[in-house]
Amino acid sequence: MTDTTRSLSQEPLLLADLSSPETRDLLPRIELVLLPVGAHEQHGPNIAVSTDTISADALCRAAAARVGPAVAVAPVVPWGVSWHHLRFAGTIALRPSTLIAVLEDVIGSLHAHGLRRFLVVNGHGGNTAAITTAIEQIKHDTGVPLIASVFGYALIAEQAKILLPAEAIGHGGGDEAALVMAVEPHRAKPTAFAPPRPTGVQVETAALLRAYGGSLARRYDEVTHNGVTGDATSASPKIGQLILDGAARRLAEIIEVVLREADAAEKAQANVNGRGR
Amino acid sequence: MTDTTRSLSQEPLLLADLSSPETRDLLPRIELVLLPVGAHEQHGPNIAVSTDTISADALCRAAAARVGPAVAVAPVVPWGVSWHHLRFAGTIALRPSTLIAVLEDVIGSLHAHGLRRFLVVNGHGGNTAAITTAIEQIKHDTGVPLIASVFGYALIAEQAKILLPAEAIGHGGGDEAALVMAVEPHRAKPTAFAPPRPTGVQVETAALLRAYGGSLARRYDEVTHNGVTGDATSASPKIGQLILDGAARRLAEIIEVVLREADAAEKAQANVNGRGR
Amino acid sequence: MTDTTRSLSQEPLLLADLSSPETRDLLPRIELVLLPVGAHEQHGPNIAVSTDTISADALCRAAAARVGPAVAVAPVVPWGVSWHHLRFAGTIALRPSTLIAVLEDVIGSLHAHGLRRFLVVNGHGGNTAAITTAIEQIKHDTGVPLIASVFGYALIAEQAKILLPAEAIGHGGGDEAALVMAVEPHRAKPTAFAPPRPTGVQVETAALLRAYGGSLARRYDEVTHNGVTGDATSASPKIGQLILDGAARRLAEIIEVVLREADAAEKAQANVNGRGR
Amino acid sequence: MTDTTRSLSQEPLLLADLSSPETRDLLPRIELVLLPVGAHEQHGPNIAVSTDTISADALCRAAAARVGPAVAVAPVVPWGVSWHHLRFAGTIALRPSTLIAVLEDVIGSLHAHGLRRFLVVNGHGGNTAAITTAIEQIKHDTGVPLIASVFGYALIAEQAKILLPAEAIGHGGGDEAALVMAVEPHRAKPTAFAPPRPTGVQVETAALLRAYGGSLARRYDEVTHNGVTGDATSASPKIGQLILDGAARRLAEIIEVVLREADAAEKAQANVNGRGR
Amino acid sequence: MTDTTRSLSQEPLLLADLSSPETRDLLPRIELVLLPVGAHEQHGPNIAVSTDTISADALCRAAAARVGPAVAVAPVVPWGVSWHHLRFAGTIALRPSTLIAVLEDVIGSLHAHGLRRFLVVNGHGGNTAAITTAIEQIKHDTGVPLIASVFGYALIAEQAKILLPAEAIGHGGGDEAALVMAVEPHRAKPTAFAPPRPTGVQVETAALLRAYGGSLARRYDEVTHNGVTGDATSASPKIGQLILDGAARRLAEIIEVVLREADAAEKAQANVNGRGR
Amino acid sequence: MTDTTRSLSQEPLLLADLSSPETRDLLPRIELVLLPVGAHEQHGPNIAVSTDTISADALCRAAAARVGPAVAVAPVVPWGVSWHHLRFAGTIALRPSTLIAVLEDVIGSLHAHGLRRFLVVNGHGGNTAAITTAIEQIKHDTGVPLIASVFGYALIAEQAKILLPAEAIGHGGGDEAALVMAVEPHRAKPTAFAPPRPTGVQVETAALLRAYGGSLARRYDEVTHNGVTGDATSASPKIGQLILDGAARRLAEIIEVVLREADAAEKAQANVNGRGR
Repeated sequence: MTDTTRSLSQEPLLLADLSSPETRDLLPRIELVLLPVGAHEQHGPNIAVSTDTISADALCRAAAARVGPAVAVAPVVPWGVSWHHLRFAGTIALRPSTLIAVLEDVIGSLHAHGLRRFLVVNGHGGNTAAITTAIEQIKHDTGVPLIASVFGYALIAEQAKILLPAEAIGHGGGDEAALVMAVEPHRAKPTAFAPPRPTGVQVETAALLRAYGGSLARRYDEVTHNGVTGDATSASPKIGQLILDGAARRLAEIIEVVLREADAAEKAQANVNGRGR
Repeated sequence: MTDTTRSLSQEPLLLADLSSPETRDLLPRIELVLLPVGAHEQHGPNIAVSTDTISADALCRAAAARVGPAVAVAPVVPWGVSWHHLRFAGTIALRPSTLIAVLEDVIGSLHAHGLRRFLVVNGHGGNTAAITTAIEQIKHDTGVPLIASVFGYALIAEQAKILLPAEAIGHGGGDEAALVMAVEPHRAKPTAFAPPRPTGVQVETAALLRAYGGSLARRYDEVTHNGVTGDATSASPKIGQLILDGAARRLAEIIEVVLREADAAEKAQANVNGRGR
Repeated sequence: MTDTTRSLSQEPLLLADLSSPETRDLLPRIELVLLPVGAHEQHGPNIAVSTDTISADALCRAAAARVGPAVAVAPVVPWGVSWHHLRFAGTIALRPSTLIAVLEDVIGSLHAHGLRRFLVVNGHGGNTAAITTAIEQIKHDTGVPLIASVFGYALIAEQAKILLPAEAIGHGGGDEAALVMAVEPHRAKPTAFAPPRPTGVQVETAALLRAYGGSLARRYDEVTHNGVTGDATSASPKIGQLILDGAARRLAEIIEVVLREADAAEKAQANVNGRGR
Repeated sequence: MTDTTRSLSQEPLLLADLSSPETRDLLPRIELVLLPVGAHEQHGPNIAVSTDTISADALCRAAAARVGPAVAVAPVVPWGVSWHHLRFAGTIALRPSTLIAVLEDVIGSLHAHGLRRFLVVNGHGGNTAAITTAIEQIKHDTGVPLIASVFGYALIAEQAKILLPAEAIGHGGGDEAALVMAVEPHRAKPTAFAPPRPTGVQVETAALLRAYGGSLARRYDEVTHNGVTGDATSASPKIGQLILDGAARRLAEIIEVVLREADAAEKAQANVNGRGR
Repeated sequence: MTDTTRSLSQEPLLLADLSSPETRDLLPRIELVLLPVGAHEQHGPNIAVSTDTISADALCRAAAARVGPAVAVAPVVPWGVSWHHLRFAGTIALRPSTLIAVLEDVIGSLHAHGLRRFLVVNGHGGNTAAITTAIEQIKHDTGVPLIASVFGYALIAEQAKILLPAEAIGHGGGDEAALVMAVEPHRAKPTAFAPPRPTGVQVETAALLRAYGGSLARRYDEVTHNGVTGDATSASPKIGQLILDGAARRLAEIIEVVLREADAAEKAQANVNGRGR
Repeated sequence: MTDTTRSLSQEPLLLADLSSPETRDLLPRIELVLLPVGAHEQHGPNIAVSTDTISADALCRAAAARVGPAVAVAPVVPWGVSWHHLRFAGTIALRPSTLIAVLEDVIGSLHAHGLRRFLVVNGHGGNTAAITTAIEQIKHDTGVPLIASVFGYALIAEQAKILLPAEAIGHGGGDEAALVMAVEPHRAKPTAFAPPRPTGVQVETAALLRAYGGSLARRYDEVTHNGVTGDATSASPKIGQLILDGAARRLAEIIEVVLREADAAEKAQANVNGRGR
């Protein structure tokens, strides 16, 4: 296990920064690869289409900076499964099979170099099913020791609920807008901030099915007229930074649990194998 | 909207029972198709590998019997995405892509006949990602008016938590065993009922990632030595029947909401279109 | 080789009835797995869309009951390749590639548990090409010792030709109707029994190409106006039971040949390998 | 309908001989395209690996020469589904999915130019399932008016049974050897002609399953030690020419039936459509 | 046509900067989308694995800044077809089919919003075949008015040949190193700059096949021991900036030709259509 | 290394001519397999749609005849990636994925028999991207010692530029027409020879992008009205024979380099491995 009590100001270890020999030399010390997956989809008038890419990437970098160089960050996947937003201009949507193939190739390549633990940090809810399918497929096909996912937005919303009014939370809402203001200010559009305009259609259906582990497949224009379900007007860069710091701290804590338990599991497995001989 | 206040004793409308002309004549009155999806996977020594198929199918039939012939039941899909159980004898596992293809073909065929609303009732958690991907793909490709999913086991567990001790709830546990005892008694094995033997490995990791909308991809033999996570010893046929009745009643209520809101949404849409002309 | 002189009344060994440890314990004694494949397609006004699923499943169960527990029955595949019936209401059609994927996954899973001999019992002629492709692919990819197929309807028609007039034989005809009356009476519709209404189109073409090992690809509505090519009016439950008994007896005889010759082939191969050392 | 009483000496219409404008001008007069599909697989010591390609192509050319320019011949597909022969040197095997893709692309392209009737003439039994799947898929996807297949070897064997002793008939046997001697003499190897050396394994199994519309998937080295199942020693170029002439005459007769009934079917359909208006 | 005589200091139009309504409003004025495609592959000790991603993206931004907001830049694809570099640590390789799927989805989505002209700017030679396949497939499937590709490295090498000695040009050489020094200085490793260590194997073969429009498929470790084929020691940030400026100026000139001729082609086509009516 | 100073008159070694035992006996002496890939696409009024198939096949045969039996020729692939010619009658187009699958299967089969060096000789420019993708995929998947491609038309055009005026060179031009006249005279149409009728559209765009390693995806009817870009009127059989002889001589020289360097590379590798032990 690596020591994770480090200064917050250190730079995260980015795979894209390294030359090949530098990567080779660091491989034995990298205990976890974070793979951020974003989206390129409408978030109404409030923030840029790159919002989920920004938030997944920023969260990984901030958490990796906290944990230190035992955790490396792979290049962010800049689009995701966003078919339901395609009627709003600018959205780019991957087919689920395309995102699965990308994850198989990226993680498969890194695994071939000897990296053995992977955490996908997902910035967009629409990616969840494809990511789950991909990591299970990779686990089954390659036997990689650890592959897992976490929904980065859940970490962000947890912090935002403390710092912002309830109506701010939601797609394109104050939680996401604040984070963009903090990280990539020119991609927030405060002069255009608008309250959500929900359609009011099938609200109970969607909530009931979600409560019972299911979902209602629908386009986002069936949900909201302006593409937004949260109110961005209370967002500020300062709140965004607090959200990011809190979410990254929580993600770093999770990573410590992941690594500690993975070490324990491998030690236990080694004992079993030793006895078996 | 159909009147759903009916006697409990009526027979459910099964598509497999109908001839082609009978189907043709009923098509205009079928407001929803339930598609149960099961699994053929180990549930430890307690119950048969067909447990999730039994529970998804029984739940659909019981709910359809309650709601009446506005709801039809399609033939159950008798296997699912169970790669993680393959080290336990008897498990049959579909690739996610295979299950997605099956759902596309089955729902696509029924949609081609004019059926317009579909609810997938999923008996096995491992199917969730593939089902979500499938129904979103079908929605995107065909524009079918309503396609959704619900996790049948969540409905069952909700009832079981009232009727059984907490330690009974879980894979192969008292909740599932009771239901099998009620519906297909010869597929429960009460003389072999055994308590779960968890490995104790990566427990906090799995819980944390789940709490934040993610997951840890792992084989089930990494979770439990005997394939079971719930204690079946408190199960009885009578409790199983109560669980099934309660879950079916709740599913019937959900279906009523689904149909009511779908009718409202279509009426609203028709008004929009009318004004647009 | 197993002793196959058994009473007719015994229960067939169904994989779906077993728990995982039960399966594990029985694995060494299972010499053959029967995998029934059906269809969910129109059979005119005479019988339900599930006819081919019923007949393939019933035939496997009855033959397995005769041969005894050396032969296990897998869950029936409840749909097949039925694109040519899609203009008749109720038909569900899998793409050939979907059925092939299902067979690969189901047989591949069972093979991974150590089962080594598989006989696909096909209830629907439209499945033949996909099944042939699948079993050859599986043979090539896995080297499974024995994988084969038989057309269950050919076994049924052989018996029916003895018991029914010639014009009764055909799709949705007296042969199939009688069997459904015997096995699942509520899925036969005797009050709606209707004679076939052939289109009379391309009759000689189809016969000639079939006689020379080929086929004419066409929709079934190009063949018959009411979806039926046999006359069901002479069907009765009693004849259906006689057909099923006769066909199952013949299938049991075939299974005995299959197992006897497979044992001999393996013994011969072992001798070759022994000498080779 | 075209007049098919022509001299035998005319040249067949080959698509590969034509320039694009020549093709365009002939399109309205081409009533049927023959698409020969061969194989590149071992035929023992007796004949070259290209045997099935030779026979399918020669049969198409000879039949087209008889019927005249209403029938065009597409370039022969020079390989097929031959996985079961791969243990014999020289065999090239397409995956079934590859052959299906080739047929979809070739026929799809020709159909896009306005050609509307296609007959696949198959020289190799192992191709049958893939061809059947392909033509049904093409029919379903494109609605092409006529697409069918015939097993060319069945036409050849029919003639050979008249002209050669029974033991000559079979894979690499006198029937195929004679035809190769007549058409491509340097691809027959009379000095190496050898009798078949069957393994004698699973003979009854294979025959029984075939008799009941099924098959036993096995490699050809499980069937015969030297790759041959017929005796070539009675073959001669003269007999080969007689076989080819007889088979081509029969194929020409079949083509006349196909075209006559297709014309009738289209006329009938036009009447229905006319009344429908 | 847009006026392209602009100041060099303006910011390029990046799709990722825009909100959805901003995108919608700009759509009619965007005449071309540049899609940079990079790689994440070893460039020896000299520069980071992200080199080709950096260069493709920087080139697109600089050219778009010159041409002005009629040209928009899509998010860079951060990996490519790099299987041949996988034996060098850190390389991530997409299968060709994955890159093709990504391009289909990204360009397909943007085309669905009404964008009609696309230029893929490729930073990595290994991507060429997949990009060519993708753009031809997209052209064929969607009929998009203009889709094309250019090899960004060819533009860079053209400038570098003027500014650097001949031995500097090559994979990981002075041309690429200089550009990285100018754009992302921390991703160049001047203290590790090393001369190439070619294997000397199959040099004439590769050159001959390339000269005659072919290629020799081989891993990069068969070509060079240290992953590099150019000498980086002459690189400097200043030269890198000159290379980038020159290459961007040339790309801007090419874009002007592309847009001018595309306008002319559409005008000509409109005249043809007009006369046709 | 084989001795390649042979008489020109010898017959080339064609795999299709051999029986399986003949192939088996020759395998150790075959040092290279040539795989010609053609097309079935319009070449205007001048020559048949089979032109590229003829030229790739003839070139392989002539070069193999020169080099001798160390070089074998596989059956020509008679179609290619020709979507851009589909608006001209007669063109058959494979999807790129289909051609890739064919090459994988053909080369994979031959590789399984022990053949280790493959050179794809491509007769049609539109095939280049698919062939490059295929050979790299095969190299990566199988580790085959040598797999490469050459553009046969480049060899032909090199000779033609010496023997014909500049305006004769091009698609359907004098270079291709002369070769067809020499090899398959009935597939040249001298009475219909017509000069090219270019559209004049996007000429500079296409040239610029090509000069910088890219391409403009467009249909051939956007390039030329009559499908031709070279003038065939100067073609003659004699010039065709000179072109073929010259191109084959050059290909034989290339093959000698390929084999010599491949021998050297294997020897070097063996030394490395020897020292490594």
